[in-house]
Amino acid sequence: MSEALPHPFDAAVALTPAADGRLLGRTHPDYANMVGPFGGVTAAALLQAVLQHPDRLGDPLSLTVNYAGPVADGEFEITARPARTNRTNQHWILELVQDGTVATTATAVFGTRRETWSDTETAMPQVPAPEDVPASDFPEFIRWAHNYEMRFVEGPIPQDDDDKTPDSTSTLWMREARPRPLDHLGLTSLCDAFYPRVFLRQARYMAAGTVSLTIYFHADAAELQSHPDGYVLGSARAHRFTRGYFDQTAHLWSRTGTLLATTHQWVYFKD
Amino acid sequence: MSEALPHPFDAAVALTPAADGRLLGRTHPDYANMVGPFGGVTAAALLQAVLQHPDRLGDPLSLTVNYAGPVADGEFEITARPARTNRTNQHWILELVQDGTVATTATAVFGTRRETWSDTETAMPQVPAPEDVPASDFPEFIRWAHNYEMRFVEGPIPQDDDDKTPDSTSTLWMREARPRPLDHLGLTSLCDAFYPRVFLRQARYMAAGTVSLTIYFHADAAELQSHPDGYVLGSARAHRFTRGYFDQTAHLWSRTGTLLATTHQWVYFKD
Repeated sequence: MSEALPHPFDAAVALTPAADGRLLGRTHPDYANMVGPFGGVTAAALLQAVLQHPDRLGDPLSLTVNYAGPVADGEFEITARPARTNRTNQHWILELVQDGTVATTATAVFGTRRETWSDTETAMPQVPAPEDVPASDFPEFIRWAHNYEMRFVEGPIPQDDDDKTPDSTSTLWMREARPRPLDHLGLTSLCDAFYPRVFLRQARYMAAGTVSLTIYFHADAAELQSHPDGYVLGSARAHRFTRGYFDQTAHLWSRTGTLLATTHQWVYFKD
Repeated sequence: MSEALPHPFDAAVALTPAADGRLLGRTHPDYANMVGPFGGVTAAALLQAVLQHPDRLGDPLSLTVNYAGPVADGEFEITARPARTNRTNQHWILELVQDGTVATTATAVFGTRRETWSDTETAMPQVPAPEDVPASDFPEFIRWAHNYEMRFVEGPIPQDDDDKTPDSTSTLWMREARPRPLDHLGLTSLCDAFYPRVFLRQARYMAAGTVSLTIYFHADAAELQSHPDGYVLGSARAHRFTRGYFDQTAHLWSRTGTLLATTHQWVYFKD
């Protein structure tokens, strides 16, 4: 056997067509989180369901994933329904189901793009090169994070003796620990790779989880393919924490300063 | 007849139960946009479908609305399905249909809240009081905007002799022209009340429309009821414009500096 094994991320988002247009997937042990799989890989599996659908039109424009309940280790099925197809875009409704129970819902907008006036208004922060920033270690129990190299420029994961901070911003270089060309699936996963902002503000771990995740894909497939190396700079912050929830906004840039995606979350926490 | 007529906004988002759990609504001429109704009132009608559903749990936490196609003037029907109900939250899938064709899809998360550590990290910009900022006039053909008083602190609607600007930020005081207590429906509508950011950058009108809108509701119903007056400060900006699309992020504060909602959009434009 001389063939290389697939990248574990590709294995984690692989879907097999089944009856009635359903797609079957399976959680991958490398992408386990504290409860169920890492949300970024679940979001990528939902995007995958559209990407490999025979009726798909164009590239991903936006994706919203609602984490309705835990995904158990093992098989899941995804239904992907084009609610409406227009000339240049297409609207999808998706559900991820286990044993007849909905675990995740999603909507996605796909479409074609054409040349227009363009401008990036939000410049990449001025930060050291990834080679000049040390890589972080993650606890063994956060299994999925070991698939990524993360180099924090600011706002690293709090340590036992850290003080509370007034600013929830984390900025870090990220890339696949095992190289994989950047595509919309990998970018989707990176959009959910920021640890919960409340950990940074409170300088400790607590129960927290994404409730709803939205991604706007500024980069099309060609722009991602021309991505110069695996490194993506991500910067995430919250705006308000109140009564068990907070929001998060993040931007992801290529090393050359292309804004690849803006992404937003609504997050549950229990202090 | 001594009874007051309902506020036109309440008339615009009124839904009547029909067979099979469907809800019937009707576009309101006061909320007409250039094509079909103002997207904010469509989003509010979708939220209304959950708010008045007999199985509804808690208050709105997040809402995503995908504008799949134009809504024609006249009747529409909304289906609202609870995909999953947990102990403290509930996940909804919604569709707005006209003549058997899906015009809008949405997902919503509702839930209960409890006391936790709280903090607002994003302070309201320092701006003059609304009484010290002149109200803007809107062209007659943007019918819906006449329901709102808008007082621009920065980034007003471009006029014929305006120059292009390097910054897409608009900050303005907004309130219902005819008083109405602030609630989640009214707040939803205000989240879509910013004119397209590309107009400001390019100093002219062009074809543009919201494709997907997400709202995170920081304020619960009680906090909205205690809102001191009708004025909401909104500040919106884009991050990247490229190949026919741009994103928009906006924050909405009460006059006393409470961050009521953060909201994001993916917007189509044609230059």
